[in-house]
Amino acid sequence: MLNFGIIGYGFMGQTHGDMLQKLDYAKIVGVCDINKEQLRDVPADIHTYLKADELLANSDIDTVIIAVPNHIHLEMVKKAANAKKDIILEKPAAMNGPEFQEMMVLTKEANVRFTIHHQRRWDKDYRLIKEVVDSQTLGDIYTIKNCLYGFNGNMHDWHVYPEFGGGMLYDWGVHLIDQMLWMIPGKLKTIYADVRNVINQNVDDYFNIQLYFDSGITGQIELGTYFLEDKEKWFERHWFVGGDKGSAYVDGFEPKGKIVRTSELLANVPGKITMTAAGPTRSFGPPPAGRLVTEDLPDVNVNHQMFFDHYYDYVEGKEELAVKPEEILRLMKVLDAIRISAAEHRSVDFE
Amino acid sequence: MLNFGIIGYGFMGQTHGDMLQKLDYAKIVGVCDINKEQLRDVPADIHTYLKADELLANSDIDTVIIAVPNHIHLEMVKKAANAKKDIILEKPAAMNGPEFQEMMVLTKEANVRFTIHHQRRWDKDYRLIKEVVDSQTLGDIYTIKNCLYGFNGNMHDWHVYPEFGGGMLYDWGVHLIDQMLWMIPGKLKTIYADVRNVINQNVDDYFNIQLYFDSGITGQIELGTYFLEDKEKWFERHWFVGGDKGSAYVDGFEPKGKIVRTSELLANVPGKITMTAAGPTRSFGPPPAGRLVTEDLPDVNVNHQMFFDHYYDYVEGKEELAVKPEEILRLMKVLDAIRISAAEHRSVDFE
Repeated sequence: MLNFGIIGYGFMGQTHGDMLQKLDYAKIVGVCDINKEQLRDVPADIHTYLKADELLANSDIDTVIIAVPNHIHLEMVKKAANAKKDIILEKPAAMNGPEFQEMMVLTKEANVRFTIHHQRRWDKDYRLIKEVVDSQTLGDIYTIKNCLYGFNGNMHDWHVYPEFGGGMLYDWGVHLIDQMLWMIPGKLKTIYADVRNVINQNVDDYFNIQLYFDSGITGQIELGTYFLEDKEKWFERHWFVGGDKGSAYVDGFEPKGKIVRTSELLANVPGKITMTAAGPTRSFGPPPAGRLVTEDLPDVNVNHQMFFDHYYDYVEGKEELAVKPEEILRLMKVLDAIRISAAEHRSVDFE
Repeated sequence: MLNFGIIGYGFMGQTHGDMLQKLDYAKIVGVCDINKEQLRDVPADIHTYLKADELLANSDIDTVIIAVPNHIHLEMVKKAANAKKDIILEKPAAMNGPEFQEMMVLTKEANVRFTIHHQRRWDKDYRLIKEVVDSQTLGDIYTIKNCLYGFNGNMHDWHVYPEFGGGMLYDWGVHLIDQMLWMIPGKLKTIYADVRNVINQNVDDYFNIQLYFDSGITGQIELGTYFLEDKEKWFERHWFVGGDKGSAYVDGFEPKGKIVRTSELLANVPGKITMTAAGPTRSFGPPPAGRLVTEDLPDVNVNHQMFFDHYYDYVEGKEELAVKPEEILRLMKVLDAIRISAAEHRSVDFE
């Protein structure tokens, strides 16, 4: 049994609360928020606190979930490690790489468990694509694209403040990048990024990131909060994988997709200059009937609860930690490099 | 009246022949190809030659169209300039920037007219997008994307040989880049490119190019000859423009598209941490009914004949040259930088 305390009972803290109540291996001992209003609907059998120190003093709690605004993650990790609590930290783990490195040192010295809530490793659309990539049935893969577009333009709440860790890179960015890093083999050689404040004055709300790995795969991520088309499912997530033996795509939060191949490639006729033929349309334009061949995607059954299931199995000694601090350090360093690339309009060598 | 000779009577040479026969201000005096087979169907009133020198010796010809394979463009431009013919050169103008610079010097010294057949400046889908960009009705534009995907994989004929100027960068690449350069204002500061030989062993058949201009606009171009989805119009060209007052898209060779805006943006509620609300779906997911508002694209009527119409008006002294050698020198230098960026996996500072 894991006995949880939740520090920060805003949107994500409450999402965690709802999740934990469904788990037979978890119990919520106490929750904490500096805003009393946030604690109004907490059931009577759960302790409530206005100060993290008071929650951390409760010896019935062995594991804390930290879901405070991003800029006070380090402070809370420090407190929790001092109190010898195991820690599940909400994303983005830290404001930058060095801050996260400090957390790793602190938690190691305190000898407490430490992981980060990257539950989107269990997104179904992502796992469908990852399964195709892992299966190596597309031959040599040259590109993996992930796009996510919105119509709202603005960010909400504290997300509009850079000093609180606002902006889309810290919000969805860390998920989308983590998904690429956890899927694409090899060293990440080069990062090139375009990051903009399109509608929001102070925080990023558009980014386009190119990640080149020495395995030969480029990961492409594009996200915009104001990127509009009046097409079905435009405002959902879109994956594309291109290999030399076929492509795969997955669309939507309730994902649908296919593996697509061709029944034959264009036959080269080297040495002979043909004067007839369809010219430009030999390279582009609609394929003849039957040329495209599709296959169903593999079956994948995942959900966000699995983050906690795996964490529990790790605590029970049944498996290794799923979301490793070393992986998230790499992620935070990628984020730092992205900001440099975007600010200086140049690529950054990474690994 | 323009009296034409056509040097190189393969696919493009014959396309030019067909075009010129429709123009009341143009006459084809002679055509030339080293392969007698190519000249079989030439009408009897047109001279045929197996050697360019013989065509160039015909004093009735004032203008030559050079449509030989790419690697002998320089040699033919040299001959034509020596013969004091005005020159319309097929794209890609040259194998690289220095080669094109040599052509510019040669034609200037010979005091002959010199332009390059970039007829895709009169592509309808491109002009629809260019019109939207020029009209400045999308506010500050941050990105312009252009994608073109194929199912054939392989290239054909001499396009498979790098030494003949094969590969997709030389073929469609120069058009797609020229369209960006002719549309996006400002200095081109940074070039980052991913160029691959996916199916073809020796020439590029996939590229993804990021062009960052100091006007704040990033031009994105992605082309693949083996980039598959089983969706309608996937294998046609797709444009997208994103600005802070709306987006525009155009799909297909018989282009269709819209300007898309929203009736309202998400209202920020800074300082207040909301615990309810749709959470993640406040940023992404389907828009409520009525939130998206579309407008028709402007009317644009263009066709490839206009390249010649404008050239004729230039010769008649009625307007300036439409496709200027200085523009194509910039284009060729961009192409050189793209090859460096792709080979070295780094961005290249340009202007």
